[in-house]
This record gives sequence, C-alpha cells and structure tokens, in this order.
Amino acid sequence: MLTKSQIKLINRLKQKKFRQQEGLFVAEGIKTIKELLNSTLNLHHVYSTESFQLNKGQETIISENELKKISFLKTPNKALAVFEIPKEVDVKANKLIVALDAVRDPGNLGTIIRLCDWFGISDLVCSETTVDCFNPKVIQATMGSITRVNVKYLDLEKFLKENKTEVFGAFMDGENVYKSTLPEKGILVLGNEANGISEAVEALVTKRISIPRFGDLQATESLNVATAGAILLSEFKRS
Amino acid sequence: MLTKSQIKLINRLKQKKFRQQEGLFVAEGIKTIKELLNSTLNLHHVYSTESFQLNKGQETIISENELKKISFLKTPNKALAVFEIPKEVDVKANKLIVALDAVRDPGNLGTIIRLCDWFGISDLVCSETTVDCFNPKVIQATMGSITRVNVKYLDLEKFLKENKTEVFGAFMDGENVYKSTLPEKGILVLGNEANGISEAVEALVTKRISIPRFGDLQATESLNVATAGAILLSEFKRS
Repeated sequence: MLTKSQIKLINRLKQKKFRQQEGLFVAEGIKTIKELLNSTLNLHHVYSTESFQLNKGQETIISENELKKISFLKTPNKALAVFEIPKEVDVKANKLIVALDAVRDPGNLGTIIRLCDWFGISDLVCSETTVDCFNPKVIQATMGSITRVNVKYLDLEKFLKENKTEVFGAFMDGENVYKSTLPEKGILVLGNEANGISEAVEALVTKRISIPRFGDLQATESLNVATAGAILLSEFKRS
Repeated sequence: MLTKSQIKLINRLKQKKFRQQEGLFVAEGIKTIKELLNSTLNLHHVYSTESFQLNKGQETIISENELKKISFLKTPNKALAVFEIPKEVDVKANKLIVALDAVRDPGNLGTIIRLCDWFGISDLVCSETTVDCFNPKVIQATMGSITRVNVKYLDLEKFLKENKTEVFGAFMDGENVYKSTLPEKGILVLGNEANGISEAVEALVTKRISIPRFGDLQATESLNVATAGAILLSEFKRS
C-alpha cells in the first residue's frame, strides 16, 4: 500500500529544487534499480510490483495501478526506487575529463554519462547551467552508468582557469581531430545543443579541434552533442 | 483562422497509418521548416505565427493559441508545416550505406539520419520494424537532414542477401574497429536499442567488428545505438 505522503514525496522529486532539499532522487525499471542497488549508493526505498528480496523496511510491494500514480514514465516499468543523492567528489584534472557547458537535454546528458563510463572517464564536470544529472530522464538514459561516473557541478570558467591543463573544444575552424595528436590528460569541453560552447568558455579553450564533415556543402551544420562527444572521446582513446 | 478539418488532418498525421494514407507528414519550428522549404520536398501547407512570404494558398497565419491546438510539441515553436512524403528511391550498395535493424526510438533514428548526412552517407535502409522516419519526433531530431538522406524501408534480410557486398555489424567478440581495415563500400548494420542485431540479420553479417571499452570491468555493457553509429561511421570515414 502506498501512503499519501509517499506519493507526495515522489512527485516532488520530479523537481530539482525538491531533490536538492530532500537529498533524494528517483530511478525506474528493474534493470536500472538493480544496477543502482549494486553500487555504493544508499537506498531510501523501493516501490515494486515484484519483490527485490530486500529488508522489510526497504521495499513496498505495490500494484500496477499504484505504480502508475508515482511513475514519471508513460509506460511504467515494474518498479520505482528512491535513492540518496551521493556527495559530490572534488575533481583533479590529472587525467582526461569531460566538461559540459550548458548541456540542457536530459537524454543528451544521460548518453554522455554512459559514454564516459564506456571510455573510462571517471569525472564529468558540468556548468551550473547544465541539466541536473538526477533528473529522472537523465537517470533513465544513463542505464546505471551514473553510479560509475562522478558528476560534479561547478563554476566552469573558474575550474578551467584554475586547472593548468590543455582545454579542448570542437569548432568548425579547429584542427582536424583525425590528424591531431591528442594527449592522455586534459579537459574536453562539449557545448550547448543550440549555441555550442559559450564565448566565456571558448576564451579558455587552448586547443581548437574539429570533426571533418564528409557530406556535400548542403550538409547538416552540426552533430548532436552526444554523437560529437562519442567521436571525440573515441579519438582521444583509440591511439 | 484554422478550420476544424485542418486541425483534424494534422492530428491524424501523428499516426503512421494516416501519414501513409494521406501521403503527408508534419514538421515544426522555423529553422526546420525553412530547411525543408529549401529542399526538393513538396509543401502542402504552412501554419505559422509569422509569415514565410509564401503564396497565399500555401500559408495560414495563426495565433499562438491556435498553434497550441495543432502542435505535437510541449513548447510549440512558432510554426507547423505539412509536407508531402517523398517517393522512396531504390538503393544500390555500391558505396557505404547504413542499415537499421529495428531501431525503435524516434530520437535515435533522427540522430542517425543527421549522422548519415554529416558523413556523406546518402542512403539509409531500415527494416520494416524500424520507427517511421516521418514520425514528428524523428523529423524534429533530424534538423533538416531528412531532406538529404534517402531513407528506404524494406525487408532487411532480403536486401542483405541480394547485395553481394560486405556486411558489418558490431558485436562484443568482433575485431577491434580501431585496428580493422575498413573499405569504402559495404553495409553497416546497427541494431535494436535493447536487443542489438537480430539473429536472422546477424547470420548475414560477414565482418564482426567491435568498439573497445576502456572503463573497468563494471563498466556499461553497451553504447547507445546512435553514439555507437557515430564512432563506427567516424572509423569508416577517417582513414
């Protein structure tokens, strides 16, 4: 049985303000919840149509109809869990890290977190204007990778100024990334979906790179930020 | 002024069945509509809060409230246009082409069409189980690239059997793509979001490739299909 106060709490967690206030976030789907249970994250509570074999105080078995009342998805997926938001860990730029400058789409952020996990990037720094990584749509898109990548929100300009390392950014006039020698450490900046890297951050980029376009002149003017990130990380790591 | 029959027609175009019956699809947003107007597509009608300077019979100026009634978006973007679905063009595998095996997510298909455009891939063949490329969410995600990539729905197994060319597919046990010699022509198959490439199509793959994973053992088990496609196309083209 779901209580009114549980329903109210979960619905509040749709909003960043309340997630920060409560220190909690929501994850949905058996597979994602299992990955999160299997990590260092602290569980608050699981609401599920099937038992996860947890301690009594940690899970509530609910009906499909009850799940519909609390799920953020159009097609709820058997279970919803509330976890504690972990403490952010400070980031040192002594390896390759990825920095996001105002990435706004939850699906893009989720895909980028998954990419970082694939390419062994342990730290992702985000401007305060980047979408919250505990947004339910981000959690959904990360497929559990959120437990393996440290995401830190900070003043991106200040961070880039303080870390004396090469800062890479993709621009149309940059050096062909396929012909560039890319180091093992540095910061790769990816920009906003509509506007790219902001002027203030661009001024801090020390190495401008570009992904060559092979289509004709009419071709698309840009790649999606997550696909551009995929190609660039692949180039950094493939050597 | 919008008429009831116009509202009804546009709402029907949310569904594939009616798009095929009417031979029409919907595109939204000034930028996307301008790209489509600038292509070989035939316009049916534009409904817009600002004039596109078209002939009288081709556009209707409407209010923000009227746009809300017909828009498929949560935040309508100034204009909605109806275009004719172009005739599909037959595909010859005498160059590099991309084949999709049951890609279901509209955002992924849109991103892959945009990627094809970027990498100069002029033909994209899709299994009949792949999401419709005239789905409004696909059109939104293509950013106009739909006008420059020929998307052909067909019996994928039959197509792969008939075309005597190398068929590439990504599998965990495939050859490291960073060390493979990749030809200028062939068919690159990308699979379903949850299940990857189907068994029937896998049997027709002649060259198994893989994208190496750099994270630790706990790392994510797969990449999103569009990001994997980005990395593979980049490898085919970078040489």
